Amino acid sequence: MKFVSIIMGSKSDYEIVSEAAKLLEKFEVKYELIISSAHRSPERTHEYVKNAEVKGAQVFIAAAGMAAHLAGAIAANTTKPVIGIPMAGSALGGVDALYSTVQMPSGMPVATLAIGKAGAINSAYLAMQILALSDDVLAKKLKEDRKAKEEALKADSAKVEVIL
Amino acid sequence: MKFVSIIMGSKSDYEIVSEAAKLLEKFEVKYELIISSAHRSPERTHEYVKNAEVKGAQVFIAAAGMAAHLAGAIAANTTKPVIGIPMAGSALGGVDALYSTVQMPSGMPVATLAIGKAGAINSAYLAMQILALSDDVLAKKLKEDRKAKEEALKADSAKVEVIL
Amino acid sequence: MKFVSIIMGSKSDYEIVSEAAKLLEKFEVKYELIISSAHRSPERTHEYVKNAEVKGAQVFIAAAGMAAHLAGAIAANTTKPVIGIPMAGSALGGVDALYSTVQMPSGMPVATLAIGKAGAINSAYLAMQILALSDDVLAKKLKEDRKAKEEALKADSAKVEVIL
Amino acid sequence: MKFVSIIMGSKSDYEIVSEAAKLLEKFEVKYELIISSAHRSPERTHEYVKNAEVKGAQVFIAAAGMAAHLAGAIAANTTKPVIGIPMAGSALGGVDALYSTVQMPSGMPVATLAIGKAGAINSAYLAMQILALSDDVLAKKLKEDRKAKEEALKADSAKVEVIL
Amino acid sequence: MKFVSIIMGSKSDYEIVSEAAKLLEKFEVKYELIISSAHRSPERTHEYVKNAEVKGAQVFIAAAGMAAHLAGAIAANTTKPVIGIPMAGSALGGVDALYSTVQMPSGMPVATLAIGKAGAINSAYLAMQILALSDDVLAKKLKEDRKAKEEALKADSAKVEVIL
Amino acid sequence: MKFVSIIMGSKSDYEIVSEAAKLLEKFEVKYELIISSAHRSPERTHEYVKNAEVKGAQVFIAAAGMAAHLAGAIAANTTKPVIGIPMAGSALGGVDALYSTVQMPSGMPVATLAIGKAGAINSAYLAMQILALSDDVLAKKLKEDRKAKEEALKADSAKVEVIL
Amino acid sequence: MKFVSIIMGSKSDYEIVSEAAKLLEKFEVKYELIISSAHRSPERTHEYVKNAEVKGAQVFIAAAGMAAHLAGAIAANTTKPVIGIPMAGSALGGVDALYSTVQMPSGMPVATLAIGKAGAINSAYLAMQILALSDDVLAKKLKEDRKAKEEALKADSAKVEVIL
Amino acid sequence: MKFVSIIMGSKSDYEIVSEAAKLLEKFEVKYELIISSAHRSPERTHEYVKNAEVKGAQVFIAAAGMAAHLAGAIAANTTKPVIGIPMAGSALGGVDALYSTVQMPSGMPVATLAIGKAGAINSAYLAMQILALSDDVLAKKLKEDRKAKEEALKADSAKVEVIL
Repeated sequence: MKFVSIIMGSKSDYEIVSEAAKLLEKFEVKYELIISSAHRSPERTHEYVKNAEVKGAQVFIAAAGMAAHLAGAIAANTTKPVIGIPMAGSALGGVDALYSTVQMPSGMPVATLAIGKAGAINSAYLAMQILALSDDVLAKKLKEDRKAKEEALKADSAKVEVIL
Repeated sequence: MKFVSIIMGSKSDYEIVSEAAKLLEKFEVKYELIISSAHRSPERTHEYVKNAEVKGAQVFIAAAGMAAHLAGAIAANTTKPVIGIPMAGSALGGVDALYSTVQMPSGMPVATLAIGKAGAINSAYLAMQILALSDDVLAKKLKEDRKAKEEALKADSAKVEVIL
Repeated sequence: MKFVSIIMGSKSDYEIVSEAAKLLEKFEVKYELIISSAHRSPERTHEYVKNAEVKGAQVFIAAAGMAAHLAGAIAANTTKPVIGIPMAGSALGGVDALYSTVQMPSGMPVATLAIGKAGAINSAYLAMQILALSDDVLAKKLKEDRKAKEEALKADSAKVEVIL
Repeated sequence: MKFVSIIMGSKSDYEIVSEAAKLLEKFEVKYELIISSAHRSPERTHEYVKNAEVKGAQVFIAAAGMAAHLAGAIAANTTKPVIGIPMAGSALGGVDALYSTVQMPSGMPVATLAIGKAGAINSAYLAMQILALSDDVLAKKLKEDRKAKEEALKADSAKVEVIL
Repeated sequence: MKFVSIIMGSKSDYEIVSEAAKLLEKFEVKYELIISSAHRSPERTHEYVKNAEVKGAQVFIAAAGMAAHLAGAIAANTTKPVIGIPMAGSALGGVDALYSTVQMPSGMPVATLAIGKAGAINSAYLAMQILALSDDVLAKKLKEDRKAKEEALKADSAKVEVIL
Repeated sequence: MKFVSIIMGSKSDYEIVSEAAKLLEKFEVKYELIISSAHRSPERTHEYVKNAEVKGAQVFIAAAGMAAHLAGAIAANTTKPVIGIPMAGSALGGVDALYSTVQMPSGMPVATLAIGKAGAINSAYLAMQILALSDDVLAKKLKEDRKAKEEALKADSAKVEVIL
Repeated sequence: MKFVSIIMGSKSDYEIVSEAAKLLEKFEVKYELIISSAHRSPERTHEYVKNAEVKGAQVFIAAAGMAAHLAGAIAANTTKPVIGIPMAGSALGGVDALYSTVQMPSGMPVATLAIGKAGAINSAYLAMQILALSDDVLAKKLKEDRKAKEEALKADSAKVEVIL
Repeated sequence: MKFVSIIMGSKSDYEIVSEAAKLLEKFEVKYELIISSAHRSPERTHEYVKNAEVKGAQVFIAAAGMAAHLAGAIAANTTKPVIGIPMAGSALGGVDALYSTVQMPSGMPVATLAIGKAGAINSAYLAMQILALSDDVLAKKLKEDRKAKEEALKADSAKVEVIL
């Protein structure tokens, strides 16, 4: 069973991170979702990652704020691709989480996306782009979705555009 | 033919980005490498990406500095995973390239890595982690490399460590 | 037909960017306005710019937020002057859009203005200053507007000023 | 007589700003160049701008570092387009000059370019793009230069590219 | 007649800057207050400063936001002490105004204070500290005020403090 | 008598800093709490610290915002451990207080924690970790609290988790 | 046996971090020192911390750069005090390591010190201040060292001071 | 006896801060200069300031880097004007010292100048502008110096200027 594994560091991340889950459901991609922290539950995180990899997790999505170590802690325990979503919400507006997620040392990549909601949505897209390399049905859906987005933009434009 | 496609925005990026190429060679992963700019050669970039996708490019790696639009320009033309390396070298030390690469809008992920050399090296690792999802030999090599890195660290430690 | 072309990357930019359009109308300067994205509709953007240039676009105004590539993508497709408005609204407060717009490489200028509303208003002023180089009526209007702004400031001051 | 006026705030800016002058010479565009400061010689700056406008200055280019007020001081004294080059060199690496140049209030645009040398080079390009709106020969040269840049990039690529 | 001159760049600064005026009134220090902009009314600013200096202005207080050139523009026209208040309110939260005010070049000091309200209040205190060098009554009031502030703090503490 | 000493620079810090006091109470750790400023009451601060050290203060917690000198001022007057909480609330969002607290020179450490509420809570935890080195009952409570936090996280997860 | 445990994430940190070790030696405080990474050797780090705590480690000092997770990873595995040294060396000059170290969530403090060498030196001082709470000899040495530092400063001053 | 008091936090500041002393000598203004730290010698700083005020110090100049508390510590002990020079040299390039110096709370102004050498030079100018309010000879010298600076700039310009 191939699936995407979504882990968030705190229940306060749920509202935004669930955007990724909804998107995976829409595209009929299987996923797991848990709350587990690099700091409050390090062994739980470690064991979940090891087990999820065995069960078939193809890609890990990690969302955390502040000193956002979760994605890095997962990357340290797997050689599957790890996607990081830096969460805003601290006094520093998420730049702390961005730097903590993206500035990983050599040999330990975390595929980092935009701070907050755009990052959450894109974590699902990136995970699906990866899965689609060996899933032609999903690949086709992604192409159609891309076209639909362009059509939506054109429709938005049509409401306001001024052409001479 | 499955391969990784590496694109850099300027010849000045070559020295650092070639680290990614060397690593792919070491792991016997096929790759293409060209210089093409989102700004100086937008149509060349566009056409290269379209053709590379048809030829079998599985993952795109894009390296650019300053207002680093290259990874985003590639992401706009493919639904394959796109990895971005923000290059340092401007007066802003690479934070401009980081923000220009990572802050992509919903639906257009760029898997962003660390600024500069660590990012270049990790672009190869992340690309290989993605390819390894359907390549067990590569997956095994990555696990062995991970172990080798840990052994190297232990050897480094042995030279200086003080244990009571 | 000479005109100013205004392009924004998302309908969410419309409220602020329409300030530029209103100002052009007030000064009786012709303009086009569309929504088109560097990422969601790259070919549409490309074609629009090529066609607009042929139709008589003298100056392009581009507004985008986050990894704001729109102005750069337009600059890559024309040698007409391109004005960039970095939009706020992301977790980074617009500094991401500012760096993504202003830090263009040699040979590809984007005339970058202030983040958000002041930038939108100034995009119209800068476009008109450029057009006014060959339009004496417009040049005169800009000088009168400048004087009117100074008078308005004096009136503001008169309400609160304390002179010994 | 139509010309571009280049003003820099200090002799220490000369080495970088002369790149703009060289480029204008290469394209046979007339220019003036002086050192004048918003702070050390405010009246000289004021008078120079007023006179230059009468003599035929079409565009002003201003280069300054730190609390870079020069471009703004020029913009306050003319309704011609003003281009600002934020200079690096302070402890803050030019981000001070960038903010001081770009964050102009409504009604007073300064067309801001990249920090340092890329900005200096682009100031000449942007000035020429503006002049080319009423100079077909110059417009043609800019298009040829753009093509030459793309060819140079392709030549750079040819030296290192790897194509499967 | 010796007095403090307060100049703000926009009526939107009035609410905060009037804190300085209130404080000067409380200490019975004479002041003038006007709105005048470095950009919208450069000659008015220039002439006001020249005249105010002749009339007896001892210290200038300038408040401005964004590319805050006002204090620098005043400093360029007088050798009296100039105090700068960087105003918040832009997308950059006032860091633009801070850098534009404080990073003045050699020979042109602007005595820069905290962003926003604390800076406005402190502009009055700093101006009075300067005037008090030749005004023993004012000097005494400042010392008493300092003691009163300490007493107020002790009273605040008494309401919540926990002493074993 | 061993106790923790909590000092805050202003009554406006009380709401957040009292989180530390509540936590110490919950763990039955004795503490003192006062308001005293490095600037408004420097001698009071100095004397309080000297006396508190004699009375048995083991650890000092200092909370301040803006140019947050309080923790440093305490560190200069004691060789007991000093914990600093940078408070948000200024235009700079607390990054000013963070830098003012953490960037202490050699020989004068301030144990700096996260900006705002997380820092306040952690100041109590860090103080208790220090006291627990010679207090086994407290050490045990901290371990139990750590476990309870992990259990709470698991309970949070159970409400939303999706396991295949 | 009570001792301080120093862990650094990479051999490249050794030169600076050994300053802490030298200082502990000078004060005759026992210490262990190893290289172990949160990412390259997570289980080694985990086990070392667990064992060191049993053996008598009183305080942990962790030094790491970039996405500096080491201190946090240690804090997640012990309730002993953990001191973090953010290392410079990345393109971001250490601000990435600072945010990754200091912005820890509630319940997981890391006592963060200055970036680089001052932080390394202060990590030894802070560790000794903590140990000195139950070691009067060490406490006395710290007070003497403090006085010696003041004398050294006075001697420095004597060489250059100008007194009227 | 009226004089300016210059205090720096470390001998490493001497080379840059002595620029201020040289300038005061050139203008025949009396000054004292000592090294004293807010942290390493708080009582010495406190006593020096109290005594200097009695002896006739009119203005204090304080130079410090990193968590630059020196100017604030002086301001807390006098109601004379205090000028702060933020020193560069830390990993953060002086932005730490800038924020620590300028963001003073209400009632405690520090007249903050540019980071590093420009700030050092301007500290002497600002001090002299303040003294000149009651010293007509000095006031005249400052006006002449201002004119000389403008002449020097014109001479610089004459060497490179291009006038049509």
